[in-house]
Amino acid sequence: VRGGLVMGFLLFGFDIEISQSCIPKPIDQVAREVGLLPDEVELYGQTKAKVHLSALKRLKNQPDGKYVVVTGITPTPLGEGKSTTTVGLVQALGAHLHQNVFACVRQPSQGPTFGIKGGAAGGGYCQITPMEEFNLHLTGDIHAITAANNLVAAAVDARIFHELTQTDQALYNRLVPSVSGVRKFSDIQIRRLQKLGINKTDPMALTKEEVNLFVRLDIDPGTITWQRVLDTNDRFLRKITIGQSPTEKGFSRMAQFDITVSSEIMAVLALSDGLDDMKKRLGRMVVASSKRGEPVTTDDLGVTGALAVLMRDAVKPNLMQTLEGTPVFVHAGPFANIAHGNSSVLADKIALKLVGKEGFVVTEAGFGADIGMEKFFNIKCRYSGLRPHVVVLVATVRALKMHGGGPAVTAGVPLPKEYMEENLQLLARGCSNLNKQIQNARMFGVPVVVAVNAFKTDTKAELALVVQMAKEAGAFDAVECTHWAEGGKGAVALAQAVQRASQAPSNFRFLYNVELPVIDKIRLIAQQIYGASDIELLPEAQEKVTLYTKQGFGNLPICMAKTHLSLSHDPEQKGAPAGFILPIRDIRASVGAGFLYPLVGTMSTMPGLPTRPCFYDIDLDPVSGEVNGLF
Amino acid sequence: VRGGLVMGFLLFGFDIEISQSCIPKPIDQVAREVGLLPDEVELYGQTKAKVHLSALKRLKNQPDGKYVVVTGITPTPLGEGKSTTTVGLVQALGAHLHQNVFACVRQPSQGPTFGIKGGAAGGGYCQITPMEEFNLHLTGDIHAITAANNLVAAAVDARIFHELTQTDQALYNRLVPSVSGVRKFSDIQIRRLQKLGINKTDPMALTKEEVNLFVRLDIDPGTITWQRVLDTNDRFLRKITIGQSPTEKGFSRMAQFDITVSSEIMAVLALSDGLDDMKKRLGRMVVASSKRGEPVTTDDLGVTGALAVLMRDAVKPNLMQTLEGTPVFVHAGPFANIAHGNSSVLADKIALKLVGKEGFVVTEAGFGADIGMEKFFNIKCRYSGLRPHVVVLVATVRALKMHGGGPAVTAGVPLPKEYMEENLQLLARGCSNLNKQIQNARMFGVPVVVAVNAFKTDTKAELALVVQMAKEAGAFDAVECTHWAEGGKGAVALAQAVQRASQAPSNFRFLYNVELPVIDKIRLIAQQIYGASDIELLPEAQEKVTLYTKQGFGNLPICMAKTHLSLSHDPEQKGAPAGFILPIRDIRASVGAGFLYPLVGTMSTMPGLPTRPCFYDIDLDPVSGEVNGLF
Repeated sequence: VRGGLVMGFLLFGFDIEISQSCIPKPIDQVAREVGLLPDEVELYGQTKAKVHLSALKRLKNQPDGKYVVVTGITPTPLGEGKSTTTVGLVQALGAHLHQNVFACVRQPSQGPTFGIKGGAAGGGYCQITPMEEFNLHLTGDIHAITAANNLVAAAVDARIFHELTQTDQALYNRLVPSVSGVRKFSDIQIRRLQKLGINKTDPMALTKEEVNLFVRLDIDPGTITWQRVLDTNDRFLRKITIGQSPTEKGFSRMAQFDITVSSEIMAVLALSDGLDDMKKRLGRMVVASSKRGEPVTTDDLGVTGALAVLMRDAVKPNLMQTLEGTPVFVHAGPFANIAHGNSSVLADKIALKLVGKEGFVVTEAGFGADIGMEKFFNIKCRYSGLRPHVVVLVATVRALKMHGGGPAVTAGVPLPKEYMEENLQLLARGCSNLNKQIQNARMFGVPVVVAVNAFKTDTKAELALVVQMAKEAGAFDAVECTHWAEGGKGAVALAQAVQRASQAPSNFRFLYNVELPVIDKIRLIAQQIYGASDIELLPEAQEKVTLYTKQGFGNLPICMAKTHLSLSHDPEQKGAPAGFILPIRDIRASVGAGFLYPLVGTMSTMPGLPTRPCFYDIDLDPVSGEVNGLF
Repeated sequence: VRGGLVMGFLLFGFDIEISQSCIPKPIDQVAREVGLLPDEVELYGQTKAKVHLSALKRLKNQPDGKYVVVTGITPTPLGEGKSTTTVGLVQALGAHLHQNVFACVRQPSQGPTFGIKGGAAGGGYCQITPMEEFNLHLTGDIHAITAANNLVAAAVDARIFHELTQTDQALYNRLVPSVSGVRKFSDIQIRRLQKLGINKTDPMALTKEEVNLFVRLDIDPGTITWQRVLDTNDRFLRKITIGQSPTEKGFSRMAQFDITVSSEIMAVLALSDGLDDMKKRLGRMVVASSKRGEPVTTDDLGVTGALAVLMRDAVKPNLMQTLEGTPVFVHAGPFANIAHGNSSVLADKIALKLVGKEGFVVTEAGFGADIGMEKFFNIKCRYSGLRPHVVVLVATVRALKMHGGGPAVTAGVPLPKEYMEENLQLLARGCSNLNKQIQNARMFGVPVVVAVNAFKTDTKAELALVVQMAKEAGAFDAVECTHWAEGGKGAVALAQAVQRASQAPSNFRFLYNVELPVIDKIRLIAQQIYGASDIELLPEAQEKVTLYTKQGFGNLPICMAKTHLSLSHDPEQKGAPAGFILPIRDIRASVGAGFLYPLVGTMSTMPGLPTRPCFYDIDLDPVSGEVNGLF
């Protein structure tokens, strides 16, 4: 059972030792075992492979398997073992109960891996392996997103600069150059002409006014919402001034870098259901408004095709395996607080076909059920059309005690004694959070199985109390799990409960109709899921509601950017707070991904490095080439 | 023979069509053919593979093949076909003359691929294939460099911030935390203690003064030379202010982003001869000086191991193939103007073993012989210990006419008529540049074969004149080549000349002894290679000479950052200028890579996007997944 102290430090080096002690199967063998054809698999070394989307086409008439989403109660900053439980559950279903099974998980960001959190491969005897491959570059998907995102950003500023420093005619001559005496529009330029209502294809036929409309995107710099990104925890890039070299002639402006996984392109990757859909989404991303108040898109910038080319390999899910040899898709990104934080639609869809009707696909939604799961249902399932059969809600005695009023839990600091000794009173009080998150899952009409992830310091009475209170709160079942220490064996009871729940009636429904006004959708989430009494739109948010509604984006689903450390907007409010007013500071539109993005309170979109980052312990053995100190 | 107009536009879509019309061999077959063992190869899909460094160990007792470096005269902004000639030469040697042969080329930067230059896979029937894989992410090496470089940058600013906002004791408690009551130094912290002369391993045993020395790197923000990087042409990042978010409490400073390929880590990758050497170089990179004037290294920041881990896969050369199926290593980066711009030592070394004693390795040095080749000899060969047998110097009639006083050659603008019609006078005058670059190569004691890369518009008399003048200037041989249009067949005569030259006596010598004073080394390059009468050190450069000499870095070789468009520092000075004073604006130290880095004039380390970037024409077919419009 898991050591209950300070996870990262106590286990320093332990997870990677377990991971390295197991010899993974060659990944082409895993691919064969799950029924992929050789042509559908691109090996990336011996332990990773990309799977072609053609597999989905080949299997399109196969029935889907059972669809299970793993979520959690509101966590402590240390995390409560959602990834570990996801892996434990598939190991139990696959290696122990001999079911066809796939885990679909998210690729971790390298920022936290080198910062404060460490990796995200699971832990103990429930890991994706090799964890150093999983936690580092993988097959380069996040790097591709960084490249694509920043090409857009560079194109935005360069375009503003060129428009400010050139006449219409000069711009036109450069945008539609004469090559051997012939001028020709490129395909993407013809699309822009059509958007402008100019049905001409001969560059010489445009009037002066049409040339003006064509060459000037006329971006209002104050409306730019497209930010640069890096997959590095670099706090000094949170707010910067760009364009201060004399070559930019004084056209400087304030800007910022976000962490790559919060890029709209990550959300596009996660929500696309094919190459064509991805390309369309990449082309309709809105980067700013023009001075006339019209949305300016990536397609207007001429960059759609290049983005699709940059993302051509990233769109293919990555095949890996667990320590017990069950298959895993790793695809798309984390950070359910500032992004939607779910693994990809494509990975889930391919996996559901591969496991077949009686099989199971276990997919993970980030952070607590109030954010990751809510977005899974209202955004991801809405776009994918997939319907989940079971929710697994991970809870720990540690987090529930915190919700009951226990002292703060902080990374890098030893746990206070309340967490090391039996304390049924704190625990019972903290089950308010468990209760609320169970209600949240049930609101979508799906049966809930609570997985109590046991730590070494938990007492029998404590674990029994959580199981009892979960059942009283309406869980289909609640099960104590010891998979961290025992691998899949420790999650067999959970797996059996999930099997039973998957036979129970599921009556899935969305929380809201996208046709509702923007404010109503936000209020519904705030009241129903978070327990707020109402919402309050600050002036900037109010303006955006008006703008986006006018621009025709009012019917998009909502992706709340909210702290994961509380059901409310205030990370200090533990348990199940009620009666609060949820402040909406601003709203952004991710039109390509397909959602509006309200900012609740102040959410940092770029983490920082602590005084002693994880990288102090990470090392490479120059003789064996082995990685040490990742956890 | 190549169309002589404006390359990119005329050939729009042509190179990728040729590339896609050829079906490459499965890359594991190429690996077998060159004698690699299955265990030494990691497949990345069907067309790319990484080669383990263990191959070098296995083959260490094999004799090396012949070592050929391809360089060029001073080019026009369009390039004169150095990559194309490299590919043509290996296709001729391998597919036509049946020699064991390897090309070693550099991975292109994605910045220019989407900016103004396009890809770098060669062209016509001499390409590395598939060119879209080559030109885009490849296997992620440049992305790994971006990640590693920016982790260092984030660590620098975060460390300064934490030191400014915490007491010695608070810093110490965080850097050496108590875990379950035990405090322990990590390995990298013990190295720092040793560097400080503190021979203690018990964290409780340090005196207050020792704690102060240990926790405070005391970086002088004004001395930071470590910049952030992106592999994107983003001119607005050339000069920025960072740290303007309130969370950074006012500690803002001026900074900049460079293009990734100019990162010191790229140079480390290129110059390392193994994992251990790479790790050592990564640890001794100097990021700034302390307020006491001492160099602060990446090892002081605690980040060496993490950097090595991030670069663990990048250090393995990438195996690809030419259109005629001959093997290619793609490894390390371009930009010989602002970096050293040579492919990796490791790729060359493995290739030299694989081809065996009678075989040939053709490696490419960036831009003209005055920069890429000079750095190849004085830096790369110095570190690798390898000795070249032949220099191939690529020349074109077009560039030589420009050197003879022809009008400006500009990308995106039709070529003036001087370049479309015979003009022997301009050409003869321009051969001053050819002559000087031949002398430059001969200065190192290596025989020179001039490859005259023929264009459609070149006349017989023009081509014959170049051949004649090259021979008169002391070339071992000079040969007209038509490989662009004909593939390897068009370079058979060149290949035969290279074979003969490789039997000629080579009497390799360096241009300077590294023990010479810094100024003398710079002056030697300026006078001997560029033709300057003297150098002039501006005050900042003078200060750096003093600083680096004092810090013990005075005996490093020199990597000049100079325009590639002239032998001098002024891109307008064509031909073989003489009698000029070369201004040295500043000097940087790349201590890990192992060179000093004088900045000659104003060299931009971050390209920009033109009004109509290449990306307008790049597209992805969403049905076939094929890439269009790359060239």
